Amino acid sequence: MSVTGIICEYDPLHTGHAWLMAQARAAGASAVVCAMSGNFTQRGGFAAVDKLARAEMAVACGADLVLELPTVWAMSTAERFARGGVEVLMRTGVVTELLFGSESGDMAALTRCADCLDSEDLTAALAAAPEDGRTFAARRQQAVEALLGPADAVLLASPNNTLAVEYLRAIRRLKSPLTARTVRRTGAQHGEAPCGGFASASYLRQLLAAGETEQAAVYMPPAAADILRRQRAAGRLTDPRLCERAILARLRTMEPEDWRRLDGGGEGLYRRMYRAAHTGVTLADVLEAARTKRYPLARLRRMVLAAWLDLPEPPEELPYLRVLAANGVGRQLLRRMRDAGAPVLTKPADAAALGPAAQALMAVESRCTDLYVLARPDPAQTGPGQELRSVPVMR
Amino acid sequence: MSVTGIICEYDPLHTGHAWLMAQARAAGASAVVCAMSGNFTQRGGFAAVDKLARAEMAVACGADLVLELPTVWAMSTAERFARGGVEVLMRTGVVTELLFGSESGDMAALTRCADCLDSEDLTAALAAAPEDGRTFAARRQQAVEALLGPADAVLLASPNNTLAVEYLRAIRRLKSPLTARTVRRTGAQHGEAPCGGFASASYLRQLLAAGETEQAAVYMPPAAADILRRQRAAGRLTDPRLCERAILARLRTMEPEDWRRLDGGGEGLYRRMYRAAHTGVTLADVLEAARTKRYPLARLRRMVLAAWLDLPEPPEELPYLRVLAANGVGRQLLRRMRDAGAPVLTKPADAAALGPAAQALMAVESRCTDLYVLARPDPAQTGPGQELRSVPVMR
Repeated sequence: MSVTGIICEYDPLHTGHAWLMAQARAAGASAVVCAMSGNFTQRGGFAAVDKLARAEMAVACGADLVLELPTVWAMSTAERFARGGVEVLMRTGVVTELLFGSESGDMAALTRCADCLDSEDLTAALAAAPEDGRTFAARRQQAVEALLGPADAVLLASPNNTLAVEYLRAIRRLKSPLTARTVRRTGAQHGEAPCGGFASASYLRQLLAAGETEQAAVYMPPAAADILRRQRAAGRLTDPRLCERAILARLRTMEPEDWRRLDGGGEGLYRRMYRAAHTGVTLADVLEAARTKRYPLARLRRMVLAAWLDLPEPPEELPYLRVLAANGVGRQLLRRMRDAGAPVLTKPADAAALGPAAQALMAVESRCTDLYVLARPDPAQTGPGQELRSVPVMR
Repeated sequence: MSVTGIICEYDPLHTGHAWLMAQARAAGASAVVCAMSGNFTQRGGFAAVDKLARAEMAVACGADLVLELPTVWAMSTAERFARGGVEVLMRTGVVTELLFGSESGDMAALTRCADCLDSEDLTAALAAAPEDGRTFAARRQQAVEALLGPADAVLLASPNNTLAVEYLRAIRRLKSPLTARTVRRTGAQHGEAPCGGFASASYLRQLLAAGETEQAAVYMPPAAADILRRQRAAGRLTDPRLCERAILARLRTMEPEDWRRLDGGGEGLYRRMYRAAHTGVTLADVLEAARTKRYPLARLRRMVLAAWLDLPEPPEELPYLRVLAANGVGRQLLRRMRDAGAPVLTKPADAAALGPAAQALMAVESRCTDLYVLARPDPAQTGPGQELRSVPVMR
C-alpha cells in the first residue's frame, strides 16, 4: 500500500497545494499524510491562520492525516526544516513516499546536487569560494557550480529546489526507507503575482494582511476558503503588528549573551542584533539595521521570533507525533502507527506520559501558542493555555 | 540657610502639589529640592507623563532642583519608597528639612506611630494579631492599636499618614540630620472626586486616560498644564494598553522561579502569580486571579511590572544623585553638592565614571525607559536609548 507524505505549511492552503495532493492520489496513493508547521513558519513569521485551522483545511482538501512539525524544526533553516519534516513522516512507519514540488522537477539533477552537497569534494570547493560577504547559500552554489557545472548549480537558486535537495539529504542522513518523488511546480512562484488560477501563499498572506479575505479566497479550494472565513469572523486570523511592541520589549531587555545562545547567533551576528535592538525604533528598523548581504532577512526574522519565544535547540530525536487532524483513513493509519509502537500524541496534555523529552517539547509548543494568540485581534481569542486544551480536528 | 526637601511623584503636578511647595517658601525655605519617581510609580504603573516633563513641571511650579528617585525604590513598598526618597535628599548634603503632606497633620501622633513600629513591643503585638488572611498593613495596624490605642492606630489607615510614618522611620534608620515637618492635606484624597479647587493625581490620570486633557488642566497650575498639553501634542503621554500584550507575553514565558526572585515573590505568592499568568486572558484578569485580601492590587501591579522590567533588588546605597531639572538656585545647590563630594550625575552616560554600582543602576533605568516609551501612542516617540541621550531640563 502506497502512502504519500508531504511536508508543508499551508498558510493558507491554496489551489496549488490541493493540486499536489491530487497528484499523489492520481499516482495511486491510498492515503496522504502531511507534516505541517505549527503556528510559526519557516520565513520567521506568525502563521496567518492557526495550525488547527490549517490542518482542518488540509483534511478538507485531500489529506488524511496531519501531523505537526514542531516549531523548533519548523521555524528554522531549510536544512533543519527538511530534517524535521522527513523525520516526522519516517517515524510514522506507514508513509512510503515523500512527494514535493520543485521548480526543476528533475529528480536526477536534484539528486546530483544533494550528492554533491554531501561529498567531501564540496568542503574543498567551499574553501576555494571567496568569503566576500555573500550568504552561505550563494557561496555554496558557487562551489557546486565548480563541481557539477552551471546547469545543476543554478537549481540551488530557487527556494523549492533548495528544499527538495535538503529532503533528499535528510532521507539519506536518517537512513529513511522513504522514496522521493518530485512534481514540477507550475503557476506562481513564491512572492509573485497570481498566474493561471494559482497564487503563492505569500501573495495570499499579503491579501489577508490588507483585509482582502475574499480576494484571497479566489485562489483557495472552496472548503479551505470557508474555514478561512470562519477564522476571520471569529477574530482568529493574526495581525503580527499587535505583537510588535511585545517583541521590541523583549529585544530591548536582551543581553548579547542571550542572542549568542540562539540558533545562528554565533559568527558575530549576536553583536549586530544587540546593537540593532538598541537603535531600531520599529521592528523593521531593527531588522534593517542588522541585515547584511551575508544574513538574509528570513534568518534575522527567525532569530527575533526565536528570542521572543525563548526557543531552545531541537532535541536529538523527535519525541512524539502530534496529531492535528485526521479523517477516517487517517484514523486507520493512526491505529497502525500506535500498534507498531509509534509515539502518537493526540491530546497535548498526554505528552508527559511519553517521557521528559516529549513533555519539554510540548511545554515549548504551549509557550509558542501562548504568545502566538496575542497576535489575534479579538481579545477573547488571546487567552493562555489553549495548546494544552486543544484536540485534533477529526472528520 | 533652610532648604526644604519633598518626596514626590507629580503624575501630573496639580494645584495641591504647588500649594505644598508654596508652604515651604512661606515657612522661609530658601530653596526646594524634590526627590521624584522616574517613569514607573509607586502604585505599579506607567507614569502618565514622563519624568523629564514632570521635573520640568516641578521647576515651573516652585521647585529649584529635581533629583530622580530611581525605579528600584520608586516602584516599591511605602517603606522602601520612603527610604529611597529620604536617602536622595539626605545625600545631597544641602537639604535641611523634609516636608510632607499627611491626612493627620499631627507630627506628635505620627512620631508615636513611627516609634511604635520600630519598637520591640511591636513584634510581640504582631505575633498576637491573628494571621487571618488580612494584609500585613491591617494586622500591623491592629498591633499598633493594642499598644497606642485606636486614636493613633487609625492614622495608619490613610496612605499619606502611612508614608509620613515611613519617612520618620527612614530618617531615624539612616541617622539623617533632616528635620521633619508635616502639613495637613486638605481637599481631595487619593482617588476621590475634586473638592475646593483641588483634585487628586489619580483623578487627573483618569481624566488623561479618557482623553480629557483640558479637564485635567483645570486642576493644574497653568505652567504645568502647558507642559501637559505639549506632551500630549507630541504623542508622549502614555497609554498603558499599548503595552498590555507585551506584558502578557512576558508573564506567559515566566517560570515560578522567575516570580520568586522578585521583591515580594516569596510567601507562596509566586505560585499564585504563575498560575494567574497562565489563566488570565487580560492583564486585569491576571491581577484579579492572583489577588487576595492579603495581597493588595498595587503590590501585584508592581510585581507584574517588575517582572516585565526585569527589576533587580536596589543596591545597598544610592550610587548617584541624578539631576532631572534645575533652575538658577538649583544650579547653585548642585555646585555646593559637587564641591562637598556628592555623586551628582547630570549626563546619564557619565554614570560609569561613578563606579560599577552607578553604571549597573543606570543600565536598569535605561532599560525601564526603553520599555516605558513603548506605551506612547506616536511610534516616533518609542525609540530605544532615550535615557542615555537625555539631559536635565535647565531653566
